[in-house]
Amino acid sequence: MFFEGSEKKLEVVVTLGKGLESLRSLGDEYWSEIVAASQAKILSKMSSASCDAYLLSESSLFVWDDHFTMITCGQTTLVPVVKLFLQSVPLDRVESLIFERKNEYFPHRQTTDFYEDIGHLRQLMPGKAYRFGRAEDHHLFLFHLDRPYSPPKEDVTLEILMYDLQAESARVFSSGQHDSTKICELTSVDKIFSGFQIDDYVFEPCGYSLNALNNEKYYTIHVTPQEASSYVSFETNYDVCQELPQTIQRVIEVFRPGSFDVALFHPERSLPIQVPGFELRSQTSQELKCGYGVTFTHYESPHRPVEGAYEIKEWTSARL
Amino acid sequence: MFFEGSEKKLEVVVTLGKGLESLRSLGDEYWSEIVAASQAKILSKMSSASCDAYLLSESSLFVWDDHFTMITCGQTTLVPVVKLFLQSVPLDRVESLIFERKNEYFPHRQTTDFYEDIGHLRQLMPGKAYRFGRAEDHHLFLFHLDRPYSPPKEDVTLEILMYDLQAESARVFSSGQHDSTKICELTSVDKIFSGFQIDDYVFEPCGYSLNALNNEKYYTIHVTPQEASSYVSFETNYDVCQELPQTIQRVIEVFRPGSFDVALFHPERSLPIQVPGFELRSQTSQELKCGYGVTFTHYESPHRPVEGAYEIKEWTSARL
Repeated sequence: MFFEGSEKKLEVVVTLGKGLESLRSLGDEYWSEIVAASQAKILSKMSSASCDAYLLSESSLFVWDDHFTMITCGQTTLVPVVKLFLQSVPLDRVESLIFERKNEYFPHRQTTDFYEDIGHLRQLMPGKAYRFGRAEDHHLFLFHLDRPYSPPKEDVTLEILMYDLQAESARVFSSGQHDSTKICELTSVDKIFSGFQIDDYVFEPCGYSLNALNNEKYYTIHVTPQEASSYVSFETNYDVCQELPQTIQRVIEVFRPGSFDVALFHPERSLPIQVPGFELRSQTSQELKCGYGVTFTHYESPHRPVEGAYEIKEWTSARL
Repeated sequence: MFFEGSEKKLEVVVTLGKGLESLRSLGDEYWSEIVAASQAKILSKMSSASCDAYLLSESSLFVWDDHFTMITCGQTTLVPVVKLFLQSVPLDRVESLIFERKNEYFPHRQTTDFYEDIGHLRQLMPGKAYRFGRAEDHHLFLFHLDRPYSPPKEDVTLEILMYDLQAESARVFSSGQHDSTKICELTSVDKIFSGFQIDDYVFEPCGYSLNALNNEKYYTIHVTPQEASSYVSFETNYDVCQELPQTIQRVIEVFRPGSFDVALFHPERSLPIQVPGFELRSQTSQELKCGYGVTFTHYESPHRPVEGAYEIKEWTSARL
């Protein structure tokens, strides 16, 4: 079964005032329409004093007063979300806009590629676009609004993008085997950090999503356990810079990937990251004009013996 | 400028007789139509006693009496070639058919993906399909007709697929700088093996193709020097098993890639390959039911420092 776990992400910061008191007060119906523009839908909502966290049919949306973060996978597309959002909040109210897109397992099945996406975004705003990582290897595309911005000091985002899960780890997240309670018991995904409230969802026939919220801090996990394209993303705005290797290690141990990427957004500097037990294969660092330092690092397990070829038993003769 | 150097390949062996005396005698017009079915066209032809070698607008075609090998890049597609060929040579005359497809730089710009391709091929014949290498990493897809076949002992094919060329190497192959004579003088691509006749082509605005022929033996080189998607393929049926590391080394030194893959088709066994100066990152070996042992190996240069992000200055808002 084909499912694209690799995600696109949109992060937008706005200036409040002039009739816009809070993005949260735009309401569930507004955000449902925003989500629908990406071809996903809202499954559930959890709120803290500072944030509304929506679990989506394809990943997650977090809305704070003055910014939102939308992460979507599958065949969703975020350029229509930008267009729709700018109809209610004009571009001059946007302080920062960052659009990311991870390299995909099944890129041909996407409705657009990144080059098309940024072609459309450039018609809406001035922007700069980058590729972190080599084109023929793991990489992350990034587009940002070309406008000076000074992120708050504590504005750190950590993304851990995991591939090639060990069969045993993948099996835990295949529905029919375990419900949400059992998954949390077996993996402690609900306790990556302490003091967070949890909203999670077990998908049919397989897959798992989790939103975790502690006032303005979140973490979120999305699991695609399918053997042909196994993928897990972990993301948080919890400031983990003091214990970055430990945090990465903790997440890696839950999912046991064969390889993974780390993207770190830091308002001041890009950090070098070493992860015990894995080889750092490549590292890309860039200071962006929109105020963030971004480091993208690709790791592989060093223990990779000669393998047999993977026999493909799925195909389609449908025109995609 | 976008150009997909990564190739598809079709290799077909037939039983002669019953009115089919030689595939070569089907004639240039026939092979022009076959090539047109892939959306490519013939640029030139060179012949030896055993083989007709066609240089194509997108790569190469080699035709012997009882088999042919067609390699195409760009947005070409080989499934229509299979369909057209089977109209003149029915499936019961086909002894072996292998279709390969390398992972691409711009997969979204392809008219099909491999899963679609094999969906169509399965409607024409029984087959097995494999992926060599991990889905999220360098990999080679392979489909073969599910029919027992015993390749001749000397039937060895070596493919070296090179990525991330050093800027200096890439520049040699950018047109406007050098003609064919100068390229051969600077790189010795015409002397990878001795005793071969050469037919080559310098593309505008850049790119280079070479066919080399020595009776039934060929080698062929296709260079895509564009910075955003640099790629070179080298392929030969010259039996290099006795000096495999030296041959790979010689080819690698011409193009100086940051990483490369080796695919080796051998009728008896799959060989382990070590290449000095590069790290073997992964190796996949499979004995195929159609008689070949295939080894696919991915190598990376160990000297890869922290890089800045690649700024993307090309995009399109056209629907692809």
